[in-house]
Amino acid sequence: MNAEAHDPAAARDAVKDADRKHVFHSWSAQELIDPLAVAGAEGSYFWDYDGNRYLDFSSALVYTNIGYQHPKVTAAVQEQAARLCTVAPGFAVDVRSEAARLIAERTPGDLDKIFFTNAGAEAVENAVRMARLHTGRPKVLSTYRSYHGATSTAINLTGDARRFGNDTATAGVVHFWGPFAYRSPFYAATEAEECERALRHLEDTIVFEGPQSIAAVILETVGGAPGVLVPPAGYLPGVRELCDRHGIVLILDEVMVGFGRTGTWFAAEHWDVVPDLLCFAKGVTSGYVPLGGVAISPAIAETFARRPYPGGLTYSGHVLACAAAVATINVMAEEDIVGRSARTGAELLGPGLRALAERHPSVGEVRGLGTFWALELVRDAATREPLVPYNASGADNAPMAAFGAACRKGGLWPLLAGNRVHVAPPCNIEAPDVAKGLEILDEALSVADAHMR
Amino acid sequence: MNAEAHDPAAARDAVKDADRKHVFHSWSAQELIDPLAVAGAEGSYFWDYDGNRYLDFSSALVYTNIGYQHPKVTAAVQEQAARLCTVAPGFAVDVRSEAARLIAERTPGDLDKIFFTNAGAEAVENAVRMARLHTGRPKVLSTYRSYHGATSTAINLTGDARRFGNDTATAGVVHFWGPFAYRSPFYAATEAEECERALRHLEDTIVFEGPQSIAAVILETVGGAPGVLVPPAGYLPGVRELCDRHGIVLILDEVMVGFGRTGTWFAAEHWDVVPDLLCFAKGVTSGYVPLGGVAISPAIAETFARRPYPGGLTYSGHVLACAAAVATINVMAEEDIVGRSARTGAELLGPGLRALAERHPSVGEVRGLGTFWALELVRDAATREPLVPYNASGADNAPMAAFGAACRKGGLWPLLAGNRVHVAPPCNIEAPDVAKGLEILDEALSVADAHMR
Ligand SMILES: Cc1ncc(COP(=O)(O)O)c(C=O)c1O
Ligand SMILES: Cc1ncc(COP(=O)(O)O)c(C=O)c1O
Repeated sequence: MNAEAHDPAAARDAVKDADRKHVFHSWSAQELIDPLAVAGAEGSYFWDYDGNRYLDFSSALVYTNIGYQHPKVTAAVQEQAARLCTVAPGFAVDVRSEAARLIAERTPGDLDKIFFTNAGAEAVENAVRMARLHTGRPKVLSTYRSYHGATSTAINLTGDARRFGNDTATAGVVHFWGPFAYRSPFYAATEAEECERALRHLEDTIVFEGPQSIAAVILETVGGAPGVLVPPAGYLPGVRELCDRHGIVLILDEVMVGFGRTGTWFAAEHWDVVPDLLCFAKGVTSGYVPLGGVAISPAIAETFARRPYPGGLTYSGHVLACAAAVATINVMAEEDIVGRSARTGAELLGPGLRALAERHPSVGEVRGLGTFWALELVRDAATREPLVPYNASGADNAPMAAFGAACRKGGLWPLLAGNRVHVAPPCNIEAPDVAKGLEILDEALSVADAHMR
Repeated sequence: MNAEAHDPAAARDAVKDADRKHVFHSWSAQELIDPLAVAGAEGSYFWDYDGNRYLDFSSALVYTNIGYQHPKVTAAVQEQAARLCTVAPGFAVDVRSEAARLIAERTPGDLDKIFFTNAGAEAVENAVRMARLHTGRPKVLSTYRSYHGATSTAINLTGDARRFGNDTATAGVVHFWGPFAYRSPFYAATEAEECERALRHLEDTIVFEGPQSIAAVILETVGGAPGVLVPPAGYLPGVRELCDRHGIVLILDEVMVGFGRTGTWFAAEHWDVVPDLLCFAKGVTSGYVPLGGVAISPAIAETFARRPYPGGLTYSGHVLACAAAVATINVMAEEDIVGRSARTGAELLGPGLRALAERHPSVGEVRGLGTFWALELVRDAATREPLVPYNASGADNAPMAAFGAACRKGGLWPLLAGNRVHVAPPCNIEAPDVAKGLEILDEALSVADAHMR
């Protein structure tokens, strides 16, 4: 492909042409998409072949927590590639041991053993398998506002519309409603009331499903894809207590929020909750090499101490991926990227986004923490009617499409989900880039305002 | 970890210690395993910290088709790491386009669009989702002697004992028996009879399940984990015809046999069969970076031309992985590794293994092609009673454990599965290494002979 390097337009056309001919894309009607050809990326930016640079407020798919092409991590990947790319999962290998140690050191409480997967969906699949075998129970409870991945169990646990069309492992899956004060399913007037009612709803669901049949409750610690749903203060401790009372395994899915996204290594720290199983992926390597996994409590590990665990995968603990994890975690620690994520949220993004909400009536709510925020865009501030309907496409989605186009025209790549823009730049984004991103959002929000009733 | 580089024993202990503390291993009772600490690997060999070198007749888990640390591929990974490790799956990217093009160029017939996954199980998950949505039918037929991965749908389609303990997505899964002349489920006396009867068995199963309810038949083109089951000549064309007749999608799972293993780019070429969907992983990057995918027929791609495909994953078409695929495929082409695999099988491995069978009564059958062989070890040549029972462990498995120990003591790392030793060295193994491996097997087979009745 480098033959066209001197002629960017020809290079772009060649890349796009082969993409259209041979690449089948996720979640898409193949003929209705027109993927941008990306030529390169660095830090918080990527660029195309036509000289356009984009400030990436989506961190790819919320995974480049240290930005693109961090030199220390790319160097570590290069060194490992020269030394040893892969060996079978049954062996002990230095970087795999070290990655597991560094992760276990940071996971909450006593989670101390790491089962490595390639990414997030497989982490969820394995956590659920462990929970079912550990308890001997079939059911798993998850929330409607959730995304857990796209393999059979993960997609059926998922609550959002990506589940539609996937109905192959629904046995034992029960969906319930989590707390969401801005659109309360419980008619609550305050956060505290929302919390109390959400816990009662979960307890009622557990009782009516039969606790003796429930293996696990799986929750995103902070709901990611469903809209940066930060739970009210008492919710997760309340869920932990319910699970303990009924012998139910608590699985926290931190695939999106783990490794600094919310300003802590793991989001569970905000509420001092220790799950029995914790799923991770994305941030663990900043996506430089695919990696995911499950951190496992001693009690569940004990279940598989003398009885074989009936799960596995060819690349469990892939050597190159583990080297990327070791380098990523060390860089995050050395550069205090977790602390920066927290401070960027508290000092820049939070105040900045709230200021935008003051100026733009289409912003119904601002919520988030660390480098993980969402603006809920509405057609009507009083009724909170979303700017576009649930699962909108085509003409129905035009207001969000126009908003997105305005962001991109301004040089910002936004993460759009339903009627929301999620704000999830790299956790180590520089202050001037935050300011620049906020300015572009400011302009684009006028487009959203124009679509209000 | 490099601090201990001057003291290999200390380095080994540190690696093993952290592994035992923090790494949870696939398919294992955690306290009953003692993983070997691997220090490095090159070509067809890897070595530990104690100066032991092993000739790898397992190609890790049958995926290092170009051997360990091929300098051209590690260089390509390094170059790509320096240039661009990752961008989101929604974009067009040079190496992703090029990997898709190179793969599509080699897949059988008109399979022309590539959906990328992280590895094999996700490839199967997505192929099955495509087949179900394309046909609007729920059931999928697979064979008892098969392995398709460990996510919910993949593990339930799997026929072998790894399925046990996994019963979460059984809806619509139907197992049938494939041809296996040496242990014929159909009481056939010849290969041709086995073929004919196996086809009739499948047809009867289709009729009694109801063709209108069957989305797909999924087959390993050559059964890998179940024992290098090479189908009789007419079987796959016969299955293709049955699928065509009933509007059933034919999925060939070439995760293990794709990319040179059987002496062709894809095993389907041996029988001139074009599936509707083909799953690949492993060999596509020789495992240097995790990658898998599905090659899709025009008819199935058309189903998702204007209707969104409801599946995806964060790392679909991961950039670093695609760069590894491009380099691997180019190296395989330049060095004619596919042709070498074929010739090694025809000239060295086939004759060599058959000669061993002559000398060792415990070898009940030799079968395979390319660099993909199995020896079926038996307690009794006449009754063909396996050397160890199905799914044996502990004392029951002692004869195979002793055979494996003898191989390793001789410097060969074998791939053991049930009562079989699979012979799957890198596709580009050198002739002297084949000879050396056969010698070690020769000695170890005396141990197997000693366990016969
Ligand atoms: C919370 C959560 N869980 C699981 C997943 C699935 O991860 P992957 O796409 O790597 O399979 C995602 C992906 O976005 C996620 O956000
Ligand atoms: C034929 C076949 N399909 C699927 C898989 C699953 O692949 P993975 O372990 O990469 O998920 C394997 C793994 O050995 C396999 O041999």
